[in-house]
Parts: sequence; structure tokens; C-alpha cells
Amino acid sequence: MNNYTSKLLEQAVGELSRLPGIGRRTALRLALHLLREEKSNVEGLGNALIKMRNEINYCRVCYNLSDTEICSICSDPKRDDSIICVIEDIRDVLAIEKTSQYRGLYHVLGGIISPMEGIGPKDLTIDQLVERIREHDPTEIVFALAATIEGDTTNFYIYKKLRELDVRVTTIARGVAVGDELEYADEVTLGRSILTRTPYENGMQGR
Amino acid sequence: MNNYTSKLLEQAVGELSRLPGIGRRTALRLALHLLREEKSNVEGLGNALIKMRNEINYCRVCYNLSDTEICSICSDPKRDDSIICVIEDIRDVLAIEKTSQYRGLYHVLGGIISPMEGIGPKDLTIDQLVERIREHDPTEIVFALAATIEGDTTNFYIYKKLRELDVRVTTIARGVAVGDELEYADEVTLGRSILTRTPYENGMQGR
Repeated sequence: MNNYTSKLLEQAVGELSRLPGIGRRTALRLALHLLREEKSNVEGLGNALIKMRNEINYCRVCYNLSDTEICSICSDPKRDDSIICVIEDIRDVLAIEKTSQYRGLYHVLGGIISPMEGIGPKDLTIDQLVERIREHDPTEIVFALAATIEGDTTNFYIYKKLRELDVRVTTIARGVAVGDELEYADEVTLGRSILTRTPYENGMQGR
Repeated sequence: MNNYTSKLLEQAVGELSRLPGIGRRTALRLALHLLREEKSNVEGLGNALIKMRNEINYCRVCYNLSDTEICSICSDPKRDDSIICVIEDIRDVLAIEKTSQYRGLYHVLGGIISPMEGIGPKDLTIDQLVERIREHDPTEIVFALAATIEGDTTNFYIYKKLRELDVRVTTIARGVAVGDELEYADEVTLGRSILTRTPYENGMQGR
């Protein structure tokens, strides 16, 4: 069907098109781009991917991706170790770090409970979280998972596990996005934002 | 700014985001996908890219990408070597091969003349085309470059070079796409399709 005239090109396109969101047409465009690049650049890309996959570690404390045994956040003495934010993966760490509003630590679950995808509690670092709380005795756990059924299920599962421990459990606020008109917020979000309204003096509402 | 907690991840994301059309967010998504893949799969991808870049050749006759000295199209005895289709790169070969309507050979220019991008006639395989025509004496050269100013310029440049040679020069038809309503065709295309109208018996109009 496809007459690539080159098996090498065909193999590279085949490998690239296995990446999520990259079809054969995009894969071919990327391969042709790489053929115009310096050899050293292509080696840089290929080796960076292989090295990352072969050498990456997970932080022994929070299970975030890390090159060292304990990640740069967990080993930072300026972070507040009395509060742990529970998130799904490193993308959530990056998103929260970007806000500069959080100085506590993280706990990376490595996913959320999803029977549809065959992901159960044992596939996540929930037991490790319970162990960590027992050992380090933080005062607060903040849930920051996706506002989906899976996220809610995971929150509830962890919440039940933590009930016997003396730790405050909170969840990030759900509500109308800053800058949004009420009119355009969906009913569930708007309803929840009314039920979980906060004292005005806590403030900075809408800004 | 970005707190990746892993230099290995950061390097991989940096390399991936240098690819055209791939921003940092997509690069991070791809890197996290690769971290969940088998090591052997990531090695397969990385090495396929490096191997392609280091070992690929250009066909000595048509300058298409090839693993061998002469590509599979040029060395196919069933192809008609009296007609040569001039195209920009291998994507055009794939597009034309897919139609199953062309059994001649190709000549890959490796680009089109574009002063804006600093690409002149000497950067393309135009002299090699003239040499090839002198040597192999085909009866027809078909221009199949993009219908842009750069494509027209390149066509005209090559046409002038070929004037002294005894070879028929044609160009692929420009017109209303099969299945399109006249109403939605742009004026230039519709105008050109009227000027270059073909005898009805040559046929298959609109089908």
C-alpha cells in the first residue's frame, strides 16, 4: 500500500505513529523534519528518550518522578512538611507549582481508581500514603484529583482509609473560574460553589 | 520556572518540544506516555530515529529517499521510463503512488525555489534533472509542484532550462476537485479550469 522506497523511513514513521495523538501523516512530517536535522540533534532526541526511560526513578517519599532517591521538593527544607497534597501524576505537580500558592509536599498516586481501565486501589500508592501519614504525622491532607466520577471515587476510598488517623482532610475548591460570568458556568459547578461558599473576609473572591 | 523534579524528564521534554507542531504540553504528555511503555519499545523508537538519520540514502537517479543506491521505483522494470514526474519531496511520491494512475518515474527536487527561505535553484536537484534528461532521453516531463507562487516560479525556471532539449513538458491539471460544487470553488481555480478545459471524450469528468 505505502510505497516508502525506504524501510528505514518506514520503520521510523511506524514507531512515531504509535505515539498517542500522532497519525501516520504527522509521523511522516516529523520523520522528514528529522532527516533535515543534524545527525547530532537526532541522536540527542533518540538518546534522551532512551536514557529517560532507562534511568528515571520515583521519589521514595512522594512517588513523583525523580533522578534522585528523594525528589527536589521532598528534600527542600523550605517546604512545609505538615501538609500533603494528593495528586494523580507529575502534570498536577507542575500545574500547582505554577500557581506559587502551595508550599507543602505532594503525594503522587500514579493514577486514579478506574474499574473501566482496570486500575484498582492496589495499583496506586494509597497504602504508601497511609504509611507515610502514620510515620510523619502531617496535620492536613489536601485532595486535588480531577472532578470526575473516578476522582470522587478515589477521594472517597482514601478518605475512608484515613478516618482512623488524626489528620484533617480537605479538598481543593470547586467553583466558578476566576474571570468567568455566572451565566456560562454549568449548573453543577455553580450549585457546588454556592454550597461551599466561603467567608467574604477570606477573600480575594473573583480576583 | 518549570519544576520537573527530574532532569531526565526535562531533557526528553525539551528534545521532543523542538519537533515542529509539538509544544511543551504535548511533549510532556508524550514523555509520560513513553515512561509507561516497555523499555524495549522506547529503545525501538529512539534507535529507529537515529538509524534512519544515519543510514538513509538518496536514490542516485531520482533523489528520492532510499536504502539502496537506486530506489525501488527507479529499479522497477515495469515502470515507464519515458516519462518523469517532477515533485518536491517523498510525500508527493506517496500521494501520487496512492492514486495508482501513474506508472512513470519521478524526480525529487528536494524543495522548491523560495527566496524567502533562502532556497535557490542550486539547492535543488535541477541540474541533475537536466543531466538525467540528456542522458536517458525521456519523451515527457510532468510538473507536479504545489500551485503556489514558489511552485510556479520553480516550474518556470525548470521550463526555461528544458527549452533547448527535445522533451514535451506538461503540468498536472488544476481545476475543480472531483465531487465539489462549482459554487464553492475559488475564482482562480474555476477560471483556470475553464481555460484549460479538456475534450469531453478524454473524459471521466466529474467521476
